[in-house]
Amino acid sequence: MFEFTIEATSSAARTGTLVLPHGTIETPAFMPVGTQGTVRTLSPADLKSVGAQLVLANTYHLHVRPGEGVVQRLGGLHRFMGWDRPLLTDSGGFQVFSLEGSRRVDEDGVEFQSHVDGSRRHLTPERATEIQWTLGADIAMAFDHVVPGGADEATARDALERTLRWLERCAARHRELADGRQTLWPILQGGTHLGLREEGLRRIGDLASWTGLAIGGLSVGEPKPVMYQMLEGLEPRLPPAWPRYLMGVGFPEDLVAAVERGMDLFDCVAPTRNGRNGSAFTPDGPVNIRNAEHREDPRPLDATCDCETCGTFSRGYLRHLFVAEELLGLRLLSLHNVRFLIRLAREMGAATRAGTFPRWAAEWRRRYTRSD
Amino acid sequence: MFEFTIEATSSAARTGTLVLPHGTIETPAFMPVGTQGTVRTLSPADLKSVGAQLVLANTYHLHVRPGEGVVQRLGGLHRFMGWDRPLLTDSGGFQVFSLEGSRRVDEDGVEFQSHVDGSRRHLTPERATEIQWTLGADIAMAFDHVVPGGADEATARDALERTLRWLERCAARHRELADGRQTLWPILQGGTHLGLREEGLRRIGDLASWTGLAIGGLSVGEPKPVMYQMLEGLEPRLPPAWPRYLMGVGFPEDLVAAVERGMDLFDCVAPTRNGRNGSAFTPDGPVNIRNAEHREDPRPLDATCDCETCGTFSRGYLRHLFVAEELLGLRLLSLHNVRFLIRLAREMGAATRAGTFPRWAAEWRRRYTRSD
Repeated sequence: MFEFTIEATSSAARTGTLVLPHGTIETPAFMPVGTQGTVRTLSPADLKSVGAQLVLANTYHLHVRPGEGVVQRLGGLHRFMGWDRPLLTDSGGFQVFSLEGSRRVDEDGVEFQSHVDGSRRHLTPERATEIQWTLGADIAMAFDHVVPGGADEATARDALERTLRWLERCAARHRELADGRQTLWPILQGGTHLGLREEGLRRIGDLASWTGLAIGGLSVGEPKPVMYQMLEGLEPRLPPAWPRYLMGVGFPEDLVAAVERGMDLFDCVAPTRNGRNGSAFTPDGPVNIRNAEHREDPRPLDATCDCETCGTFSRGYLRHLFVAEELLGLRLLSLHNVRFLIRLAREMGAATRAGTFPRWAAEWRRRYTRSD
Repeated sequence: MFEFTIEATSSAARTGTLVLPHGTIETPAFMPVGTQGTVRTLSPADLKSVGAQLVLANTYHLHVRPGEGVVQRLGGLHRFMGWDRPLLTDSGGFQVFSLEGSRRVDEDGVEFQSHVDGSRRHLTPERATEIQWTLGADIAMAFDHVVPGGADEATARDALERTLRWLERCAARHRELADGRQTLWPILQGGTHLGLREEGLRRIGDLASWTGLAIGGLSVGEPKPVMYQMLEGLEPRLPPAWPRYLMGVGFPEDLVAAVERGMDLFDCVAPTRNGRNGSAFTPDGPVNIRNAEHREDPRPLDATCDCETCGTFSRGYLRHLFVAEELLGLRLLSLHNVRFLIRLAREMGAATRAGTFPRWAAEWRRRYTRSD
């Protein structure tokens, strides 16, 4: 269980399989985000129809509403959501550190105010681990201290050290709880300071034998070249045997850039959030379906796409749904965008197996950015 | 084409088949309402999954946005909506007469203000017929003058006379246009005055040989016993060979009462509107899924139902979706409610074939109202 097998590489790009309790997934893979136990506007059947292998849910959100106890008594997160394939839960760290002005961090953990009812709550490494165990995802994440993209080295060092101490506590609690149905992954922090990231990576490796690694604290406001620089610096030092989950990424161009730099797993709300805003991914770059030019356009959103949206509806109809504020439009664009990223990940796997990833990436990028 | 065959009757209830250009439907049948060319929150695949045979779209709404010309250039209403089964369009009469204070009626037609952009528009019997022909539904409706449920006899007489004169103009224009791919149905008005209704019915029958009849101006605010009285008075006089479409009905108990009184076809926004409000139809009466009692309820919404919602999700999860304001909840309850009415219509057909409709209806009513 939790075995990761690399099947091919092409330059730094990798393709492989990861065995999880609820199924084996192929990497690279994009995880749709089901913040509150639902990928916004999409049903589990929709997610299967677009080939989702793994879904992420947010521990913070499910903890404050409906509460992990409710989820447990309703059969655990898989049963609750009606999703029988693999799940990953984040630790709540990112959300808690994103709460403006209403949190207090100390060595024990974080005190924060629920965004739902304003109640005071306390998350510690142990609690975050227990909540995730109760939810029952295939992969749980360690509770981490996240700093903004522009944090100076002292701040980033402080958060890294705390994240490492918390990782030990998460791992200890997880060892007490887990019975092989869930694995715990560490999160590498260190801001935009490569030296800190390298040190963090070394110390994580010294702590235990992990089944995967998440890279956190990127894609949080820093310039993109800085993120790429971090990944390029880290990549040669990452143990090949760990699947590498780049948290919070991303947009199509980010996925390509990250696989190019050796990453395997991704999550982001972009496909659903942008879909709800009327923005659709296409191989020729993003399309804003509200634009008047689509009014009588009989073509599908993306002629290369095999999703229900592209197989059934014209751009003209989709524009009508958005202009008329019909809820179906939000779902149809979300569905397409998720399918787009899942197909993109699969194409990258195929190009890697073919040993042609760099050429594929250059061609993909040329087409995608041409229309921008 | 447009042939209606009655297969069985049980008391006044009937079951039969109606042949339409895009397919043959079984009656009694409930039509989900796709006001703006989409049944709110549901895709065509969803509608097929719940067994929808026929969908209604609103001429007024599609005329003001995106305009019937756009629909036509995108391949007609079926192609536009991605719905290849039968469609019915209303005439716009009901909507235009519902516009508060911004319409002017004369013998020629109705001048009104678009709710979308405030522009002045003019609908006449001929225009309403042309717009519906351009949209291309299987069944078009004559342009009628609708009066409120409590209208006095003089007002109702005036509207009935105008509706009859307009019917002649609709029929004349439709004969010029139609080529067998669309039929036109008259709408019987007359308010809550049975004498007027009987006279209207006679005069409609004298005008032409119709393929069906709609009964309008009921379920518009009058007390329910009054509606039932109208239907009971009319039923013995209705030519059995016409399918009878009771417009704007309804709720489960209304469907049963109407089939009991010889009606065949129904449309209503209730299943989708109530679904979006968190109210679900069940054989034991309506359930408000927001209620705290459902918080940890592992049972489906309706244990007798075969829809995706009831087959996949617990009441606890559905409540969570509503409390957390997740869009998926709106769709899942809409889907179930539409399925509920479609199954109800099918059950009534089966009871009619079995010759046991009155007993079935009594039993259904006992269970449905017990929990109220």
